Amino acid sequence: MRSLLLPAIAALLIGAAPAKLLTPNDIVTASPASAWRTIPADDVLVMDLKSGGRVVLQLAPAFAPVHVANIRALARGNYWDGATIYRVQDAYVAQWGLNDSDKGFPAGVTAKPPAEYTRALKGLAVKPLGYADPYAPGAGFVDGWPVAYNAKANWANLAHCYGSVGVGRDLSPDTGTGGELYAVFTPLRHLDRNIAVVGRVIDGMANLSALPRGTEALGFYKDKAQYVPITSIRLASDMPAADRPAYEYLDTRSASFATYLKLRANRHDDFYIRPAGGVDLCNVQVPVRKKA
Amino acid sequence: MRSLLLPAIAALLIGAAPAKLLTPNDIVTASPASAWRTIPADDVLVMDLKSGGRVVLQLAPAFAPVHVANIRALARGNYWDGATIYRVQDAYVAQWGLNDSDKGFPAGVTAKPPAEYTRALKGLAVKPLGYADPYAPGAGFVDGWPVAYNAKANWANLAHCYGSVGVGRDLSPDTGTGGELYAVFTPLRHLDRNIAVVGRVIDGMANLSALPRGTEALGFYKDKAQYVPITSIRLASDMPAADRPAYEYLDTRSASFATYLKLRANRHDDFYIRPAGGVDLCNVQVPVRKKA
Repeated sequence: MRSLLLPAIAALLIGAAPAKLLTPNDIVTASPASAWRTIPADDVLVMDLKSGGRVVLQLAPAFAPVHVANIRALARGNYWDGATIYRVQDAYVAQWGLNDSDKGFPAGVTAKPPAEYTRALKGLAVKPLGYADPYAPGAGFVDGWPVAYNAKANWANLAHCYGSVGVGRDLSPDTGTGGELYAVFTPLRHLDRNIAVVGRVIDGMANLSALPRGTEALGFYKDKAQYVPITSIRLASDMPAADRPAYEYLDTRSASFATYLKLRANRHDDFYIRPAGGVDLCNVQVPVRKKA
Repeated sequence: MRSLLLPAIAALLIGAAPAKLLTPNDIVTASPASAWRTIPADDVLVMDLKSGGRVVLQLAPAFAPVHVANIRALARGNYWDGATIYRVQDAYVAQWGLNDSDKGFPAGVTAKPPAEYTRALKGLAVKPLGYADPYAPGAGFVDGWPVAYNAKANWANLAHCYGSVGVGRDLSPDTGTGGELYAVFTPLRHLDRNIAVVGRVIDGMANLSALPRGTEALGFYKDKAQYVPITSIRLASDMPAADRPAYEYLDTRSASFATYLKLRANRHDDFYIRPAGGVDLCNVQVPVRKKA
């Protein structure tokens, strides 16, 4: 089968039509440095696994300030010493923390945060998606985040897309503290506005998504021996400067992002025959990369 | 909000005084036997891995008849002897087959099938989703399958949702034979109408989704030693009756499915505070279960 590929590519590349059809990734690669925004080191949470894998999260203080302040305090207070990944539910989430621990919280943690499932839309500069969203009257991007919103009711929420990180909680009115976090394997938009989304995985997601699935209800591991040990969860801002990983995202108000979005909705490069003419919020995937 | 919802659901489901707010799964559990449709054994493809894991697919002859006929002929002709899973791309697909093999096809295989990326909408009985779809003018369900469609242009296509199985191909006009198949880890709707979808995984998806990710471009495994061996790929109809697994799906034209769909769009059980009032095609997940 592979041998068929060569002549086809040759025909496309050296044939009559000289202009190459650009992919969304071509736009990302060609975007100027000015289109990128550095993620503050205080918003970068680095989780190292005993296996050697690393999972890096970006926190979203503009959307869940009290929960994010909690997460920073939990990291700085070494709350997660001994933490594990104890739940991996296929097509749903990986969840980590101390699980049923009675450990007390370090100083600075708000034990009962407000819900923070939504925030006011006012004050946010939205790049609209431009296509219908079944979960909210509006959808788009705010400072690199996928967001759903209702202009009339003045709310906005971070969407549950692949890699989104939320706060495990019990039944309402409990909102969770941030001590138990989960990352999403596939869009779970029905959770939007029902739980606090506090960030997203920006690197190492496969260290969660390829873990063995738990066999108990909701994907909890049956035996503690299956728990995946976490060696540390630290803010990048607390790491030695030389070790500190740094990331940047494509400014969702940049011209590059506008073109990227258009191409995500209208794939026309070599592989694609029929552009969709639309895209859903979670399938846009705001580009995030490690800083050189 | 909860108190507002209660009377509405009461009127909808039970009558004056419901004891409990029902979940979508409650509807599935309570649905009568008459709401279920057995999947023909000729549409069930059983893939056994050397690891002991089993992945079961349902084929979709109504949407990709030539490719499905090929897959049946490939299975019956033992084409996949020595096949492996050789590509696992995070947030994308697992792909299997013989990869770069020059092995000839068994009798009955059409070497260059038609595209079968869409079929005529006419002749299909659609249960509409009832919410906007960014990828097509219409979306809904046909005989248990998630489908996007355009009534005016008279086309319909199987949607790339979690577990959907498509036919690996090179660049157009190649459409693939069915010898190389992939299963989708997360909705990839931009592939709709650009590739032949031939079925879906109905059991054992975690035996694909939890595999180690390949580190080469597009998630190909770097070393052949990483390939995941497949011991057999058989049609259930070719298995001894005693070993043959049987499955059924919830009839998407049944009253039970209509209620299930409504509840997927309006989660109101204990965990949920704010029902979305909408749901996307791939997040409905038509119930499929093993027959007792």
